[in-house]
Parts: sequence; structure tokens; C-alpha cells
Amino acid sequence: MRPDGRADDELRPITFERHFNDHPQGSVLVSFGRTRVLCTATVEEGVPPWMERNGLGWVTAEYGMLPGSTNSRKAREGRTGRADSRALEISRFIGRCMRPVVDRKAIRDKTIWLDCDVLAADGGTRTAAVSGAYVALHDAVSALKLPAWPLRHTVAAVSAGVVKGRVVLDLNYEEDAKAEVDLNIAMTGEGKYIDVQGTAESHPFDDKTLEEIFRLARLGIAEITTRQRLALES
Amino acid sequence: MRPDGRADDELRPITFERHFNDHPQGSVLVSFGRTRVLCTATVEEGVPPWMERNGLGWVTAEYGMLPGSTNSRKAREGRTGRADSRALEISRFIGRCMRPVVDRKAIRDKTIWLDCDVLAADGGTRTAAVSGAYVALHDAVSALKLPAWPLRHTVAAVSAGVVKGRVVLDLNYEEDAKAEVDLNIAMTGEGKYIDVQGTAESHPFDDKTLEEIFRLARLGIAEITTRQRLALES
Amino acid sequence: MRPDGRADDELRPITFERHFNDHPQGSVLVSFGRTRVLCTATVEEGVPPWMERNGLGWVTAEYGMLPGSTNSRKAREGRTGRADSRALEISRFIGRCMRPVVDRKAIRDKTIWLDCDVLAADGGTRTAAVSGAYVALHDAVSALKLPAWPLRHTVAAVSAGVVKGRVVLDLNYEEDAKAEVDLNIAMTGEGKYIDVQGTAESHPFDDKTLEEIFRLARLGIAEITTRQRLALES
Amino acid sequence: MRPDGRADDELRPITFERHFNDHPQGSVLVSFGRTRVLCTATVEEGVPPWMERNGLGWVTAEYGMLPGSTNSRKAREGRTGRADSRALEISRFIGRCMRPVVDRKAIRDKTIWLDCDVLAADGGTRTAAVSGAYVALHDAVSALKLPAWPLRHTVAAVSAGVVKGRVVLDLNYEEDAKAEVDLNIAMTGEGKYIDVQGTAESHPFDDKTLEEIFRLARLGIAEITTRQRLALES
Amino acid sequence: MRPDGRADDELRPITFERHFNDHPQGSVLVSFGRTRVLCTATVEEGVPPWMERNGLGWVTAEYGMLPGSTNSRKAREGRTGRADSRALEISRFIGRCMRPVVDRKAIRDKTIWLDCDVLAADGGTRTAAVSGAYVALHDAVSALKLPAWPLRHTVAAVSAGVVKGRVVLDLNYEEDAKAEVDLNIAMTGEGKYIDVQGTAESHPFDDKTLEEIFRLARLGIAEITTRQRLALES
Amino acid sequence: MRPDGRADDELRPITFERHFNDHPQGSVLVSFGRTRVLCTATVEEGVPPWMERNGLGWVTAEYGMLPGSTNSRKAREGRTGRADSRALEISRFIGRCMRPVVDRKAIRDKTIWLDCDVLAADGGTRTAAVSGAYVALHDAVSALKLPAWPLRHTVAAVSAGVVKGRVVLDLNYEEDAKAEVDLNIAMTGEGKYIDVQGTAESHPFDDKTLEEIFRLARLGIAEITTRQRLALES
Repeated sequence: MRPDGRADDELRPITFERHFNDHPQGSVLVSFGRTRVLCTATVEEGVPPWMERNGLGWVTAEYGMLPGSTNSRKAREGRTGRADSRALEISRFIGRCMRPVVDRKAIRDKTIWLDCDVLAADGGTRTAAVSGAYVALHDAVSALKLPAWPLRHTVAAVSAGVVKGRVVLDLNYEEDAKAEVDLNIAMTGEGKYIDVQGTAESHPFDDKTLEEIFRLARLGIAEITTRQRLALES
Repeated sequence: MRPDGRADDELRPITFERHFNDHPQGSVLVSFGRTRVLCTATVEEGVPPWMERNGLGWVTAEYGMLPGSTNSRKAREGRTGRADSRALEISRFIGRCMRPVVDRKAIRDKTIWLDCDVLAADGGTRTAAVSGAYVALHDAVSALKLPAWPLRHTVAAVSAGVVKGRVVLDLNYEEDAKAEVDLNIAMTGEGKYIDVQGTAESHPFDDKTLEEIFRLARLGIAEITTRQRLALES
Repeated sequence: MRPDGRADDELRPITFERHFNDHPQGSVLVSFGRTRVLCTATVEEGVPPWMERNGLGWVTAEYGMLPGSTNSRKAREGRTGRADSRALEISRFIGRCMRPVVDRKAIRDKTIWLDCDVLAADGGTRTAAVSGAYVALHDAVSALKLPAWPLRHTVAAVSAGVVKGRVVLDLNYEEDAKAEVDLNIAMTGEGKYIDVQGTAESHPFDDKTLEEIFRLARLGIAEITTRQRLALES
Repeated sequence: MRPDGRADDELRPITFERHFNDHPQGSVLVSFGRTRVLCTATVEEGVPPWMERNGLGWVTAEYGMLPGSTNSRKAREGRTGRADSRALEISRFIGRCMRPVVDRKAIRDKTIWLDCDVLAADGGTRTAAVSGAYVALHDAVSALKLPAWPLRHTVAAVSAGVVKGRVVLDLNYEEDAKAEVDLNIAMTGEGKYIDVQGTAESHPFDDKTLEEIFRLARLGIAEITTRQRLALES
Repeated sequence: MRPDGRADDELRPITFERHFNDHPQGSVLVSFGRTRVLCTATVEEGVPPWMERNGLGWVTAEYGMLPGSTNSRKAREGRTGRADSRALEISRFIGRCMRPVVDRKAIRDKTIWLDCDVLAADGGTRTAAVSGAYVALHDAVSALKLPAWPLRHTVAAVSAGVVKGRVVLDLNYEEDAKAEVDLNIAMTGEGKYIDVQGTAESHPFDDKTLEEIFRLARLGIAEITTRQRLALES
Repeated sequence: MRPDGRADDELRPITFERHFNDHPQGSVLVSFGRTRVLCTATVEEGVPPWMERNGLGWVTAEYGMLPGSTNSRKAREGRTGRADSRALEISRFIGRCMRPVVDRKAIRDKTIWLDCDVLAADGGTRTAAVSGAYVALHDAVSALKLPAWPLRHTVAAVSAGVVKGRVVLDLNYEEDAKAEVDLNIAMTGEGKYIDVQGTAESHPFDDKTLEEIFRLARLGIAEITTRQRLALES
């Protein structure tokens, strides 16, 4: 039995609240259970200096946690004089998940910033961030009214792992803290892999476990993809 | 006529959404019109080294803006290698507004962190932050179940200023950007001053203007105080 | 009786030593009693990128304290890896006090840096800094020999507050440390407000107290303005 | 045909030069072809504050690149005022690969630092780093002469990916730069997974591709494990 | 002929103004011509963690330049996000000059901070700083009323170098900017070397030149030592 | 008798391993006994903004130590939030040693970066760095095939000092740690001085000692110059 009573292959309630904020072109408050992440997509003219003149646009992501989002207060990045390496790693993960689905020729000379800020953390913040960032990105590129549609695929992410010897989907914080294995998987809506990132926190694992993890992840991605589609249609 | 049709002495719609988040002892999403600030109050055991052994507790505040909260994307503090001096100044302002209302003997050996993060900015973020932080602080000290109630006063803040020659209350961004004079005033629920901070953005002003600004501020504070009370009773 | 024997409405001895240094266009060592601040005004060609093409010049200020200026040694900004938020706040205060008196069209395409470095601190460093920076600014714009005189007003600043229940002018460190209320007020030479910044350090205060504070401030500003004029004529 | 003439499932020449340096307890210069990484393991008494009193030791890793290691000079971390987020991400990856194989009770009250510095980069620096760090770690814990042997498994890492539609092992820089898919896989000597991290750089990929990548990775890990064993026996 | 009419072996006018400031135990404004440096010596209880328990005290120095001290404004350290490597180098130089003359047993468990801040720069700031710091140090240790006098020697510093092929003493900025060789020499009052630091800015130099530089330096040090003694007796 | 059995005027074994790395134009692993420094010379098009338009090139150096290079692990610059002032000072020393031997007109519009990273430290790292950087610089400018040869002199550096009252050449760490006097001397191959930098760590020293130090240094430089020449001819 999981701590919140879910079946092993069951997601937490997932919602996407679009148009949370007026300023950015896309702005989505995504919830995976009690995990809540505000994802905004902002379009700026221009690209970084090192990619000017190649005719492409750029997509980049930044992730952060509010000080009050977690169970013991998190010192504010930028006031400590030290980089938050976990936040930087997750920022890079989100960027890698989003870039493969964007036709960067179609957004030429523009930069799209995807900012994912965790308002409340209960496990799975990076997969919620990817799933919400996709919806914000969709809204932002819709607003641009480009001649060609720049998104080649939808993208969603979910975690799956091994807790007390059982493979489970979408771990909350309590499960995450004692997981033996923890993977984060990003896939397109058609079920192809975009990013896979996982670790044996304590027990090295075999192929069979990995296959079961991927199986649950595919189920989860399918459902999240549906919810993204419904949110975008509403 | 004001841009959003308000009377000169009229506040924007003000709401306090308590218990936004599970982790901090107090957590309030405050809205002043389209300005939305998430205020959390977290209690930690211990005080900073320089105030140990004096038998008092400590109250401190930090303010930040999410990158997508404002009309052109704001670079994330801590990723630029430069301090955000405006955010630091407002952090200090919020701390100065809150400390005079707390009996620091009653919270001895504890630190209360008040984190105010702007989710959406449309002018008046610092006064919304003070007003929301008070409600979060109230929830946090209630949760502590201290032998003596540590809050001596309620505190709320509001802006008032001169726009196109007229004194107006609670400026939104459009008004703020062209204001000739802009003050932020924090008061107790009984109408005494806690902090006053204001500038002639372009035109030095006289005593009569200052008196009219204070008059509107008192009206606004009274109404915000009422809304704080109602929110805390609900 | 005040610690140094002054009357409640009496300033400390105030002096402006112009031409302290050769390099900057303006350079003034200002003393408010034992508080001594070196204020320099340096003119650079060019303006920050975000204000190019609007035909205006720029005025900005930076404030710092030397490590040996204060009663316990102050760690040197830039060697600790942390921003000095008090110094940044005061830098912004000084800039806000100076910009309203400058016709920025008249200094187009130039930046004037006002650097205020505290050599010795005995309370009132920010008000001494504003008062001295004005004299340095005056010298710097004189040196530019512009076709139109760019200063619309003189500006001076002074503190006033409540100490042991009495309203007093120009607090020194000993008074400042125990003040119940502390305001810093910047005014033009004609007695109009430019900036007001003040806090109830411990006791919220009423309108009558505020009025008395403003009354003393006006007296102080008038005298400082006279001393600025005399210094500039010498 | 691969650029350097290797078969698709063929590693580059791999060597481990132990005892490169006198000071650290373990010190290994690992080469994967022209990629060269200096891995040192240093044992310090004590653990970080947040894990004192739980009776465990700590293992942590840091990764960096020398400025001259790469084809255009890399600015030196710590002189730019900005964090190198790629280096921080890889530091975390190496740490996650090493901790699951260490019995942290057996190294109680000690911290083992694994420093991996890239002297020459030609693709696969992070997998070379993990493979070399294991050998350095082995030397360091041997030197400690602990009552119980603290390493539960050996660990090695290798990359595999898709280049021009073919799945290949141990990509060099030329292949890496144009890879469609790129995975880094860390496994124990017995062929169990410790960490998996991979991205569709441009083309989302299916299960069959993933399986083939894992198959090649297993082959590579087996050979690296043999070379680690031989190096440690010499 | 030198730009300011001095003979080749002639110092600029040198003055030491003691007790410039109230807070530090020693505080000296030193002038070498138009170069002016404020040197303060502050005594703190305690020593850095890495030298506790060895029964010694510590002496350390920090050097900085005010933004307006130099001919084009110098960006303020700590606001740029980059270390000022020249200032750090000179800080280390000053510390190395002062430590050999202090009996660190006699100041056990204390740290003496020597802060040297350049108010006006016209060449020779580091040698002025050392010469002034000695006087401030002397005042500070006098104030401590220690059982044993902790200073074994006096120390002074001066520059000498080659300008247009002539060896000259105490270069001002104009000379320094075009010097072929530039040395900074710190000596005890008895004429023994404490620190020597010099560079062929453009022309490698021979032993004969070096000897002549040292000869002039000895003359200069003797005179500065006399002025230090006179200042301390006044 | 010296700790490693050398005569007072005897260098440690010195080797230069060229072409250590493929990417930089020059890349040399230099050893002075057990001190090993990797020196790379990288040529970039362009010069810093402040020297554009004067028709010259630029030569700059950076020095660092790997965390495992020294006897207690050295925290990694850029992860601590504090500048490593010793590394910055040595960076500046290396740059000052190299610039006087380069005809900067001959490398116009180019920047040559000399990176010196200590892999293993046993005293004398900065003098090994200068000596190795010269060889890397020579290789880099050879690769440029410039119309005029840009190096006016060779340059090498060595330390000499006083240990237990005896003047010795090329101190290792054990000697360095207890030296009374320690100088670093850089000279051209013809025996002219480029840079002299030295300190009485504990005992001020006289002219006779200084002369003997310079005599040993000249012997050492002559031998290092020979080894540089042999390495470049091989």
C-alpha cells in the first residue's frame, strides 16, 4: 500500500491552470498532487551571442524553488554566494527535454525562456516542471502566430522507481526519500523517449526492473499527455 | 479618471488566500488587483550568532520576484553574479515593518523568516508583501502556541502618490510608471506609523501634498486591516 | 540633555571641504560632527545600454563604508562573497535624492557617478552623503561648462527622530542606536520634499510626532543649504 | 565507418595510470583515447554538519575542466563570477555513481573527496571520470586499512548513443557533437545499473534503440571493469 | 629632469596624519605627494580557525581604492561580481611586509587588521600604504598596553625604478606609467630587507641597475623612517 | 644537508614534456622534482576591449591548483564564493614575467592565454609555471607562423632563499615551509632580470644575503634555460 493509497501505476491528481499571470506569453500553474510549479514561457527577441548568424532560435529553461516550498526553509539562491547545483542540474534537464520538440528554424532570432518555479514541493518537481513547461510553451508559440507551427511533438515527464522492492509511478516526497531506485523519464506524446535520468539511490538494479519502470512511465506519460491536451483545448 | 476606473481614494480588490502551501507555518497568497505575492512565514529554532545570549528572537524578511512576474523577463537573482539591489532594499523594508509589532522576548531563541515572492507584478508589490506577510506571521505564531501572544499590533501597508497632479491611492503599474511622487506607508491597525518611504520621482512636493497622501493612506490601511481581520477569522 | 550637549533642534558642526582629490570633477569631504564622508562626482561619456537613444543623461550613486570607519571593523564588500544590502539600499536612496534635481536632457549622453565613501561613521552617514554629493555634483557640472545649467534645485538631507520621547535633529550614533523613531529627509533648498524614509524602530508613532519631525527637518535643511551655498561660493 | 575506424561496439584504448600524484590517498590518470582525466581521492576526517551524528561517512565528487583541455579555451570557473552549471551537473552525476557502492557505515566520520579534472577532452569525460574515480577510491580505501572492506561493488561508466542512425559505443567528441541520442550509463562490475542519463539531442527514440544502447553499454562496462581490475592488481 | 622637478634620489613630501578617525585603535592618513592613503589598524579578539591553539596572534592587511581615487573611475569591488586581483595582490604584499616585524606571541589570541584605502592615487600607493600601516600598527599596539612590546623593527617601503634610462626614487603616476623597471622595496628602519617586488615592465635589467635601485631605496627608507619616528613622537 | 640530499646550488631534476594535449597551440607538462604543472598556451583572435585600436596583441596568464595537488585538499576555486587571492597574485606574476619578452606588435589583434595548472605541488610551483609557460608560448607562436618572430628573449624562473641560515636554490615544500627568506626570480636566457619577488618570512636580510641569493638564481636560470632549449630542439 502506498502512503497516499494509490495503486502502483497510479498518478497523483494532475491539473494545469493556464493564464495564471498576465505578463508572460505562457503561464501555467501545474499540480502533481501537492507539488505545485509555476511555469512561464517568455519570448524575447534575439538569441545568445554564440548562436547568432545560424538562423535558429533558442529555447532555455531555469528552475528554482521558493524558500517556503519545502519542508525545511531553503536558502534563497543568490543571497548565499554559492550556486545551487541541484537547481542548475534540473534547469539543464528541463532545457534538454524541451529543445528536441521545437523546430528552431521556425522561431528564428527569438529566445524562449521557460521558467519553472516550485511553489510547493512534494516530490516530482522536475517532472511536473517539464509537463507544465510544455503547456506554457504551447501557449507562448500560439501567441506568436508564426507562419509554421514550431512544435514537432508534445512532451511530458514522470518519475517512476522502486520503493520497498515495488516499482511505483509518480513518487511523492515520502516515497522519494526512501526510494531504492528513482528515474525521471520524459517522452513525446507518441511514446518516444526524450530524456531518461535515473539512479540507484541504494541498490543497483537489473534490466527487468528497468523494463518495468519504463512500462509504468509509458502509462503515466500517456495520461499526462491527455491532460495536457484537455487543458490546451479548454 | 484612473486607468482602471477607480476613484482616487479607492483600493484595488484585495484578497488573502491562507494555507496556500503545507510546509511553512504560515503561507498566504495576497492579491492587490493583479499583483500577486506569495508570503510564507517559517519558524526556525535558533537566532543569528550576533544576537545569541540576549534572550530575544529574530524576525527577518526576504523579497524576490519570479522571472515571469513582470512585463519584461527579470533575470534570476543568483544566476547573474550580481546582487539585485532593489530586492535587497525591499527585503529590508519588509523586515523593518514587521519587527516593531513583534514582542521579541515572546519568541525567544526562534527566528521567523518572512519570504515574499512576487508571482505577478502590477505595482504595489512591496505593500502587498507587507500586508500579506502580516497574515502569514499571524498564522505562524498561532501555530507556535506560545504562552504569551507575541504580536503587539497588526500591520498593513499601502502606496499613495501623485499622478498627473492628483493624489491617488494604491497605484498600479501604469500609474506607478508615470507618478510624480510615490510613497509607501506601513501603519498599525490603530493608524500609527511604522514606516514611511517615498520619493519625488520628478517633482519635489510640499507639505499639503504630503498631508493628502497620508490621509489617503490612512483610509487604505483601515480597509486592508479589516480584510486581514476577516481573512484571519475565516 | 543630548549626549553632546546640543539643543533638540541643533545640527552638529557641518563642513564641506571641496577639491579633496584631483581626479574626479567634483570631490568633497563632508563632515556632520565626527561623521566624515568623501563624496566624488565623476563624469563619464555614455549612458547605460537600457537608456541609450532617449536623449537623456544618467545620474547614479554608490555608497560604501571603509572597514575602519565604524566601531567594530566592517568586513570589506567584495571579499565576503555576499552583497552588503544596507550599502545597496543607501546607494539607491542617494540616487533617488539626486536625480529629481538634474535636468537629464542637459547632460545628454553622459553618466555622472556620485560615490560616497564613509571615512568615519558617527550616525547620519546617508544624510551627510546626500548633502556632500550635491556639492560634488555642483562642482562636476560646473566643470562641464554645459550650454544650459542642469541643476533645477539644490538638495540637502538630514535625519530627525524620537529619542527618549523627545523629537531631535541630526542624531549621532549614540542617539541613533536607541532611537524610537528615525527619519531621513531630503529637501530642496526651497523646502520641498524629495525623499522621506523613516521607521518606528520600536514605537509606532502618530501624526503629531511626524509633523514635529518634519518641522525640525525643515530647520536643519535650511541651515545645511546655507552652508552648501557658502562652500560653493568660497 | 566511425571517424577513428572503430567497430560500433568497440571502446577506445583505455588506460589507468595509478599513483600519478603523492598527496592524495588515491590518484589515477585515466585515458579513454585522447580524453584524459586526473582523478584523485582524498580522505578527510569529519563529515558535513547536516550528517553528523548518524554514524555514516560521506562520499562526494567534483568535476572540472582545465582551460586548455578543450578545443576553444574554457574560461576558468571562479574567475567569471558565474557558476559552471555543466560542471556542477557532472559533479553530481559522479557522486551519485559512487555512493551506492560504498558502505558508508564502514567509513564513518570520514569524507572521501573524489576530484575529477579533465586535462584533455575528446568526448566521454564524465564516463572516464567515473571509471577512473572508482580506481582512485579503491586505492584510497585500501590505504585506510579499515576493519571492514567498504566497497560493495566495482563501478564503471561508458557512453553509447545513436550517430547517423547507428548505435555506437564510447563516442568521441566528433561523434558526440552530431549524435542524435547520447546516453551515459554507470554499472557495477556484475552488470547492474547504477545510473542512467541520456537525451535525444535531436530525435526522440524508441524502446528498441534503447535496448541496443544498453546492450552495447553492457559490453563496454564489462571490458572497462576488466581493465580496472588489471590496473588494481598491477 | 623629473616631471615634478625632483632630483633622482628625492622623495615627494611625505606626511603622516595620526588619529584621523576615532573608532580604530590606529588610524593614519599618509601622503606621498598627491597620493593619499587612509591606514587603519583594528584589533579584534580571536584568530582565524586555522591558527587557533598555537598561542600566536595574527596580522593581516587589506588594500582597496575608492572609485574616485584614480584618473578614470574605478568600479567598486563587490558590485561587479569579479575579484580585483591587483587589490588582492597588494593586500598580500602589505601583510607580508608587516608580519615579520611583529612578535606574534606578544599579541596572542588577537587579530590586527590593517586596512589601507587609497583616497587619491598618484603612484606609489602600496609603498605609502606600508609606511602608513606601520604608524597605525604602532598606535594600535600602544593602545593595547601589552606586557611586552610586540614590534621588533620599524618598517617602511618605497618604490624605485628606471624611467627614460635613469634610476629614480619614489615614482609618481606619470613616471610609473612609462617606467622601464619598477621595484617596491620594504625595509626595516635598520636598513634590512623585508620585501622586494619588481618587474621589468619593458626592458630586462642587469645587476648594476638593480644595485643602483637598491641604493636609492635605502636612502628613501631612511628618510621615511625618520618621518615615521617624528610623527609617532608628536 | 638538504632534505633530498641536494647541494645548496643544485636544482631538482627538471623536465619539459611538450605536446601533452592536442587542443591548445602549446601544451607542456613541466616537472621541478615532484612539482608538476601543466602549462598551455592558447591563441585567440581579438584583444580585450580596453586595448583595441592600439595595434598590439595581448599576453595574459592564469594559475590554479587542482584540489588534489597539495597535501591537504584545496577547495576548488569558484565553488566557495571567494576569490583565491594567492592564485590571482601568482597569475599576475606569470603574466608580468612573460609580457616583457613578447613583441606585442608582432602578435597584433591576438590574445595568448597562458594557463598554468598545478597537478602536483612540492614547492616552486610559480617558478616551474613560468619556465613551462615559456616553452608552451614558444610552441604556440611557432604554430602561428608569423612574418616576424615575436619572442625577444627566453625566460625562466627559479626560487632561492635562506633555510636554517644557508642560502639554497630551488626550495622544495619542506624547505619552503621553514624558509627564513624566499625569493622568486625570473630572468632572460642572457641573465637579465625580468621579475624579482621575495620576502623575509621571518628574518629581515641584508645585502650580502641578497647577493648570494641572486648568484644562485643566475646559476639555476642558466641550467633551466639549457633544458628549455633542449626540449624545444627535440
